[in-house]
Amino acid sequence: MANGHDAHLHHISQRFNAELKDLRDHVLVMGGMVEKQVAEAIDALVRLDAPLAEEVKANDRHVNRLETTIDEECTRVIAKRQPTAGDLRLVIAVTKMVNDLERIGDESKKIAKSTLQIIESGRLPEGAVEVRMIGEHVSRMLRQSLDAFTRFDINVAYEVIKEDRIVDSEYKTAMRSLVTAMMEDSRNISPILNIMWVLRALERVGDHARNICQHVIYMVHGKDVRHATVEQTEEIISGSR
Amino acid sequence: MANGHDAHLHHISQRFNAELKDLRDHVLVMGGMVEKQVAEAIDALVRLDAPLAEEVKANDRHVNRLETTIDEECTRVIAKRQPTAGDLRLVIAVTKMVNDLERIGDESKKIAKSTLQIIESGRLPEGAVEVRMIGEHVSRMLRQSLDAFTRFDINVAYEVIKEDRIVDSEYKTAMRSLVTAMMEDSRNISPILNIMWVLRALERVGDHARNICQHVIYMVHGKDVRHATVEQTEEIISGSR
Repeated sequence: MANGHDAHLHHISQRFNAELKDLRDHVLVMGGMVEKQVAEAIDALVRLDAPLAEEVKANDRHVNRLETTIDEECTRVIAKRQPTAGDLRLVIAVTKMVNDLERIGDESKKIAKSTLQIIESGRLPEGAVEVRMIGEHVSRMLRQSLDAFTRFDINVAYEVIKEDRIVDSEYKTAMRSLVTAMMEDSRNISPILNIMWVLRALERVGDHARNICQHVIYMVHGKDVRHATVEQTEEIISGSR
Repeated sequence: MANGHDAHLHHISQRFNAELKDLRDHVLVMGGMVEKQVAEAIDALVRLDAPLAEEVKANDRHVNRLETTIDEECTRVIAKRQPTAGDLRLVIAVTKMVNDLERIGDESKKIAKSTLQIIESGRLPEGAVEVRMIGEHVSRMLRQSLDAFTRFDINVAYEVIKEDRIVDSEYKTAMRSLVTAMMEDSRNISPILNIMWVLRALERVGDHARNICQHVIYMVHGKDVRHATVEQTEEIISGSR
């Protein structure tokens, strides 16, 4: 009888583990989709490719649908399995992470919309170099944040959090030079404004990649570092390295 | 014995209800704090009041701290009480809502930063009228979204969701007239850019108020309407009115 009971519990915990694994896999599928959206949004702008920008706009709904699905999965797992400790943290972190991924999807869509307006205005203004540079930077951060999640790696997570400060300063420099370009020729104002929105969106992608890494640290380490400085974050995680 | 057991269960459920009530009360405290941040950020800009803008910047950390506290409370309630159905939806909705409230806090801080730059530049550019108008509009939406949460009122929630479309169109109109003002005088470019960032932040406050209302609908009705159109949302909730 006791053995039967143990076998039953073992069976339940196996199914539970399979569900948690599914959850993680689905986050990675969504992450891959969002990475592609960011990459194609940047490509569409740099190459002034209107059909590609339209595609990015249209594909946002797939990202949205995945957010809803994964969120429902999380609620079901909590209600059915009543996870505690690390398992509960994983599920909670996933609900927060998919929200950040969805917002990266939104930013990609915004980039695509600005791109279509730039194409309509007939010329690529200054700032394409900065878009490519900052775009590559935040794309790398996004990739690393998903790696940190896959491998429960708080060191990689911490690197991305540090990196976000560099992106913020690249962003500020780029914005200053765009203001100057605007002043030099008032015909540039509208197209440069669109490039500014694009840079702003990319800077936000960096913020969301950083947020994902903060959720990874919470998941692994149980500490909420969302409002900690980089230095405080290092201190908090250094105990567990 | 059975009576003792019943009394024990009754006692637990009373404590659980008290915890859920605390959770709701804390969201309302945070909501009140965030409302004040938005109002003072707008005031500081319109009156070019640098000390008030500094205060808004500094107070953001209180908002952040409340987010962390309420989030921990939610995790504790889930782990300890293992809520299901409506109770679980309430707790999940609260974790999402405090995230939106915290982001409204962030937007207020951004408005305060832009205000300080405008004050430094020495003059209030065009657009103050629009800031006041859109500011009042989104403040009202925020108030109503908190009311909808307090009273579990999906009709009020739906009204706010509809209202957000109007804010979006007011925002677009204001931006167009600011682009024109920029073109007319290139000395205006920097201060007007700051006003644009403020309007963008206010428009985001409206988005977050709408999000809060979508979480209220999820909480009351169990339906995720985050990615539904206004028309689809009406259809979804009309069954339960």
